[in-house]
This record gives sequence, C-alpha cells and structure tokens, in this order.
Amino acid sequence: MAEKQDDRKVTPRSQDFAGWYNDIVLRAELADYSPVRGCIVFRPDGFAIWEALRDELDRRIKRTGARNAYFPLFIPQSFLRKEAQHVEGFAPEVAAVTHGGGEELEEPLIVRPTSETIINHMFAQWIHSYRDLPLMVNQWCNVVRWEMRTRLFLRTAEFLWQEGHTAHASREEAERETLTMLEVYRSFVEEFLAIPLIVGRKSAAERFPGADETYTIEGLMGDGRALQCGTSHFLGQNFAKAFEIKYLDEQNQLQYAWQTSWGVSTRLLGAIIMVHGDDQGLRLPPTVASTQVVIVPIYRKPEEGEAVLAKAGEIREALEKAGVRVRLDARDGVSPGFKFNDWEMRGVPLRIEIGPRDLASGEVVLARRDLKGPEAKSKVPVAAAATKVSALLDDIQRSLYQQAREAMSRETREFANYADLKKQMEGEGGGGFAVVFWCGNPACETRIREETRATCRAIPLNQSGSHGNCIVCGNPASERAHFAKAY
Amino acid sequence: MAEKQDDRKVTPRSQDFAGWYNDIVLRAELADYSPVRGCIVFRPDGFAIWEALRDELDRRIKRTGARNAYFPLFIPQSFLRKEAQHVEGFAPEVAAVTHGGGEELEEPLIVRPTSETIINHMFAQWIHSYRDLPLMVNQWCNVVRWEMRTRLFLRTAEFLWQEGHTAHASREEAERETLTMLEVYRSFVEEFLAIPLIVGRKSAAERFPGADETYTIEGLMGDGRALQCGTSHFLGQNFAKAFEIKYLDEQNQLQYAWQTSWGVSTRLLGAIIMVHGDDQGLRLPPTVASTQVVIVPIYRKPEEGEAVLAKAGEIREALEKAGVRVRLDARDGVSPGFKFNDWEMRGVPLRIEIGPRDLASGEVVLARRDLKGPEAKSKVPVAAAATKVSALLDDIQRSLYQQAREAMSRETREFANYADLKKQMEGEGGGGFAVVFWCGNPACETRIREETRATCRAIPLNQSGSHGNCIVCGNPASERAHFAKAY
Repeated sequence: MAEKQDDRKVTPRSQDFAGWYNDIVLRAELADYSPVRGCIVFRPDGFAIWEALRDELDRRIKRTGARNAYFPLFIPQSFLRKEAQHVEGFAPEVAAVTHGGGEELEEPLIVRPTSETIINHMFAQWIHSYRDLPLMVNQWCNVVRWEMRTRLFLRTAEFLWQEGHTAHASREEAERETLTMLEVYRSFVEEFLAIPLIVGRKSAAERFPGADETYTIEGLMGDGRALQCGTSHFLGQNFAKAFEIKYLDEQNQLQYAWQTSWGVSTRLLGAIIMVHGDDQGLRLPPTVASTQVVIVPIYRKPEEGEAVLAKAGEIREALEKAGVRVRLDARDGVSPGFKFNDWEMRGVPLRIEIGPRDLASGEVVLARRDLKGPEAKSKVPVAAAATKVSALLDDIQRSLYQQAREAMSRETREFANYADLKKQMEGEGGGGFAVVFWCGNPACETRIREETRATCRAIPLNQSGSHGNCIVCGNPASERAHFAKAY
Repeated sequence: MAEKQDDRKVTPRSQDFAGWYNDIVLRAELADYSPVRGCIVFRPDGFAIWEALRDELDRRIKRTGARNAYFPLFIPQSFLRKEAQHVEGFAPEVAAVTHGGGEELEEPLIVRPTSETIINHMFAQWIHSYRDLPLMVNQWCNVVRWEMRTRLFLRTAEFLWQEGHTAHASREEAERETLTMLEVYRSFVEEFLAIPLIVGRKSAAERFPGADETYTIEGLMGDGRALQCGTSHFLGQNFAKAFEIKYLDEQNQLQYAWQTSWGVSTRLLGAIIMVHGDDQGLRLPPTVASTQVVIVPIYRKPEEGEAVLAKAGEIREALEKAGVRVRLDARDGVSPGFKFNDWEMRGVPLRIEIGPRDLASGEVVLARRDLKGPEAKSKVPVAAAATKVSALLDDIQRSLYQQAREAMSRETREFANYADLKKQMEGEGGGGFAVVFWCGNPACETRIREETRATCRAIPLNQSGSHGNCIVCGNPASERAHFAKAY
C-alpha cells in the first residue's frame, strides 16, 4: 500500500470544517472519489474501521437473538408502491434497472434503497403461526439512494449498512424490540466509537416513511451540526397490512404481525472523523483502530539503528502477545518527524518512540494522540511497556469520549426565547443543540426549520416531566426537543 | 425462527439429483426463491454457513498481505468496453441502470458482474512508483450476472463473493501471487469445507475474459458433475494497458504493472451440499456448522423430563465451555424421532441422546451424522462427553473429506480411447472426471465438448512428464487434462 503522503497542510478545522473533513478523508486514505456519480471507494484504512465497527455491532445484534440473512439487491417497482408513505419517501431517489441480458425488462427493478418491501414479501411466506414469531433477521449490505448532493461517507449514492427487520405477535413486544435496538445502538456508539449521543424519538415530520414511530441516536459534530447515527423504527402493522403478514394466534385467530426495522450505516465513519479529528488529522478510538500503537525508531547512525530496531522488535512482540494491534515503522529514508505526522494524520492512538538514549536508560517514550503538549508524553520502563500500553489505550478511549462529551455539553443550550434561538442558529458555526419546549404542532416545527434551518433532531425519552411554553407559539408544552442544523 | 418442517420425503438423491438438491436447500431452510428473477434469499441457516466460510477465508486472505476495501456497485458502461475480451465475455449478461432519481442517465451504469474495470481505474490513480507496489486489495460484495437458467446457489443473477485484485512490479511476482492464491483456495476448500479438489490451469477456451492464464480448483459433485470452486487469474498487463496503470521503476522508467485477480463465491454452498449431502439431508463439516452438536432429551413421563433436561443442560454447558457450538432441543410436543430427522436434515454433525436409562448408567449416546448404522453410535460417560465430542468433531471433518475423496477417486477414470470416453459421458449420471491426454488443440477440445458435453475442467499442475497421444486426434500430447460435464 502506498505510504507516501503529500505535504500540503490540512485545512484548519476551525477555518473550514467541510474542507478540513475532506482533507482528512483523502489524506488519511480512508476513501476516495470514484468515477461513478455519488459513489465512493472505501480504501483499506477506511474499510478497516468499518470492519472493526461491523464485527462488534454484529456480535451485539446477534446477542439480541437476531440472525443474519441476505435478500435480493433488486426490488420489483410494484413492491415499493405497496406502502403509501414508503413509496412517497423513497420513489424520488431510486436507481432503476431497466435492462438485463441485453433486453428491456417488463417491470423495472429498483436497486434497494432499504429492504422493508422485499423482506416483508418473504416474511409473509414464512410466517403462518404464532410459533413462527418473533422472526428477527438482519442483513449487512449495500443500498442505493440517488442523492443529488453527496459527501464522503455522510451522503453517498451507494452506502453500506445493516438493516434489521423483525416481526412479532404483539404490539408491546414490537415496541420493546424497537427500544432494545435503540439501546444496542446507543451503548455501541458511545462505548465503542466514543461518541456521546442524544437519544430520543423523532417528530412526525422526521419519521421513517412507513413507520409509526422512529427513534434515533444523534451525535453532535465538531462544527456544531448534528448527525443522525442510527435509527430504530416501530412499524406498527403498516407493512404487515401492505404485504399480508398474518399469523394464527393461540386462539386460532388470524392476526397481522407487528414489526420493527433498524439500521446504522457507513455514515458512522463520518461521525468518528467529525467528532474526534483535529488539525493534525484523524484521532481513532483504540477499539476501531487497525493500528493501535505505532513504534517509531529514532536514530541517526546506522550502527545505532541496529540496536534500536532490535529493541523495537522486542517491544512489538511483547505488545502483540498482549493482544495489542501494533506496527513498527522501520521505513528507511523517512525522518522520524515525517513518521510522527503521518501516523498522527492516520489517527493511531498511541506512538512509542525509541532511540539510543532510551536504550541506555531502559525506557521508551509514549505519546498519546488524544492529548496535546507535555501531558501527551510519558516515559515507561521497557519491561512495563505492554502493561502500560493496554491501560493507556483504555484511558484514551475514555478520554476521547470525555472530550467529545464536554464539547457536546458546551454546544448544547436551552432557549426559552425564539429570537435567541434564531440568533444562535444564524451565528458562525453550526449552532449546536438547542433544547426548547415545543408544543408538538408541526406548524411550529416547520417555522423553526424554515427560519433557522434547524430541524427537530430528537425528543429525548424519559423527560423530567416539567412543563413550559412552546418556543414558537407560546402554547403549553410538556416536552423539550433537541433542534439542530444537521447533516 | 420457524422450526417446523413438512413431512414429505426428500427426493432420493440417486433417483433425481437436481430434485434432491432443491429439496435439501428448501427443507433445510438454507435459501428460498425470491420474486425477483434469478435472485435468491439466503435464509439464516444458509447465511450462517456463508459467514463461517467467509470469516475463515478472510483470515487466510489477510495473512497473504491483501487488505479489504470496497468499490462502487456501478460501473460506467464505457469502462467495461476498455478491455476487448473482458467486454465480450460479460456484455451479454449485464444488468444496466438507466434511470436515477427519476431521470434518464447520460450513460447507463452496469451493475458490476466483476470489478476489474472499476478497481483498475482506481489503481491507475494510486500507483505511481515501484514503492506503491505490490497493491493487494480484496472485497466481499454482491455481483450480478443476468443468467438465463438459474439454480439455487450455483447460478443466480445476484450472488455474493470475494474478489481479490493485485498489481505487481514484475511478471514473476504476479505469477507467484496467482499461484499463492490458488493454494490458499485449495487448502481452504479441502481443509475447511472437506471438499477434495483437482487443481490446475484452464484451457484457453475456459479462461476468464481478459486473463492470460486462469487457474482453477474443481470439485466433483455427488452426481459425477464437476463444479468450479474458485479461480485465480494471471492478467498479465491486459488491464494495466487498458487502464494505464503505470509506475516508475527503480531506474525511473515507466512500466506497466502486472496483475492478478481471484475469487470464490456462494457457489461453495452448493458444493458443500452436493458433495456431502445424502438422502437424510445436509451433512455439514463441523467447521461450518453453526450448530455442531444437538442434544436431544428423551423421556415419556414429565417427572423423568426434569432430571433428563437438567443433565442435558449440564452437558450443554460443559460443551460450550469447551468451545463447541451446541444446542439443546427442548421443544415440547415434538417426538425425539421427529427431532432426529429434523437435525439430520439440517446437517448437524453430531447428536447427543440422553434419556432416563442413560442418567442411571451415567452415559450418553453420541450419534454421528457422517456414518450410518451401528457404527454411527457410541456411548460415552457423561464426564468424558466434552473431550470425546471435540475429538469426534475432528474425526467427522476428516471422515467427510475421506468419503468425498473416495467418491471422487471412484468417479475419476483414465481413458486412452475416444469411444470409451464418449460412452462414459453418455451413460447414466454425470460421468465423473475423465483423465485424458490432450494435444492442446482447441479443435479437439471443441469436439469433446460438442459430442460429449464434457468440458476441459483443469490441466493439473506438476504432471509426471509422461507422454501419450491426444485422445481425439492421436497426435503426440505431453499433458493430461481432466474433462467432465460441469455445473
């Protein structure tokens, strides 16, 4: 793999967040533009993050009892039309296959934008009795939505995701499943990706097309804009009725099934970058870093090099034995300083520096990617390196979460006055989360969106029960909602 | 998940192999037909086999130094045309997207039938110098080929596979990579899937469109027909020239890169079924079985049940601790005999039976899926069950391979006389492998294909060096080839 890196400076994050973001993605070799409109290439360093993320989430999903399956890429156009809201939501952005094997098809096939329709068509054939329920499947796949304005990882015509689809015998069970998966997503994203979240339900306007209720986890990016990181939908009986998913209950009565669907996508890679990255480049949580520790040997004379490299090799071995994903950067003809910058750009959480003086003192220098200045560096005896590194990686994971948590807190503001809200959203930057009482009237939500470009990101669950007045109309309101400009 | 199973008999394998095969796939709930022409649904029990297979092969591929990436699903039509043989091979069977977001596209997009063109377009941008080589990427993805005659797992319009693509600085290195991957495939399929293989190169007529040389691993199915289980292609500089993949060598001269590509697909699921299955159903190698051991409790009176289930639970726990994938079938209202049949159909390698008499004697019965009659069963003290089970699973893996190896040997015949070859291929069944001297002349190969329907499956590597006469024309021939009717 190409190791070179061009030496133009990365656009400073504070100066041009979007430019900074693109620089990071391209320079850390996470992804590249492709010649196909709106489609990107996931390069090995980017895909490795997705693999780490996917494998862990897959384990957590399977623990809930769902099993993986795989359904066709293509969906007959007529299927999409069976659920009224669903087709309205997705029809404008589909890609259609009209020719196969050189001949025009009788009915165009839609490249799946999401798989509710094809999966529920199959569910109708597999579900006959209450004994067939719950039916819980998940698939990891590519989906296509013909987006007009695309952005690396965040909004691409083709993206990768997992989509879970379940059917249950009762409304209560399906509602419970919706919230179970919401919690799986929340704990996964907070623990594994170190991204703090707001958890809540969506307003009617922001719901998934075809859902009775959509729940969401929302993160706040480094520019103060929100990013939807995952959603879990309670579908009620909407698809069950559209696709005739019926089962005989214990009293031998035919009933429609109750359903859910839930998904997260490669957008999460964008969230990792935008929450943790800084002007030096990517900062990866150790959990998802394919290289957690890089060892950089430092020497000038070749005769020094031999001893330094030998010791570096020993340390690598000790770390590998301790289960650490470690890499020794023994490249010739590249200065230590270049290597430092290179691995900082690529987000490696911890660097070990070792030179002749360290050899003499029996110590090595550890440099954390999550901190700056003198506190980022510490010395540790070689013999203690493996133990110390494992502890530090845990600490870096916590520290990244903590830094992001504090950044989100700083950018979360309560407003009781609509003019203040407007002012905040008009100012520099994304505007952060605005927490406001909202009466629930779509007209008030629309006014906020049109006048401030902030949308209702989430209505948090388990509110305190306090009451107030809607920030727009002043009518009584019993819930606070998080509004923000969003990706 | 639905556990029920209809009670129609499976079509006997010896009577109607194709009918037997479909019965197994559907009744073991591995896959289902979909409403989309030529596309199938991978149900959880089938997909679990693919996951086990994929995870192991992925580890082996990564060990060679290749890294995973992901390239766009869509390929501009003009890309496919850049390599003359490639377009000729794939153009007739592509699916084309002509509309996106409600509008007609300027240039149709091809749904990838394989990704040489799009990947090599990117390679051309990433490769500049010999320091960028070798570049070795792999992707796991879906591909689409508009097949007219489809068959569950074996030939479907959409299928899943991995495709590796590499670029090297020298012809020798690329040739070595081609053979390295061939060996990765061979050892993987023989060791992990317990499928014996013939390994060799393809004739010019059977080569991948765009390759200078194609190497193959070929298995022999239960009906005497061959199945290509994986291929590794030496692409020479064909795509490098079509896509301008050039690098500066150490002498600062521009050179075209040398390339390979290699892949295996969900066809392998078909191979597992057709090599190992019998009239009772699937027989899964323990390596790929998501349930390796099923415990079936046997009792009539409820008061017996309690003690039996308690002991069965203990055994399950002991097996889980030993790393065995075990399941306790405690279903009520279903007889032990029904459960035996059900799990035999699903291919579970080992069954543990436990009843009141076993409790009294402190033993359990182990029943192997790979053997028939009395030798399939043995008794083992409960305390020794975990150790014995692990050893038995290893033995079952070996035994399945051995049985398949013997079946392949029985169905592999040398022919020196063309009339005998014809007769063999005309008879009942698939005809097996015919090993014949072939002069290498495509005309002789064509005659065999047209008159016997057998094609040249592989020309084995490392032949003994003996010489003979071409079975068709009688001219001197220095190599033997394996011919067979094939899927």
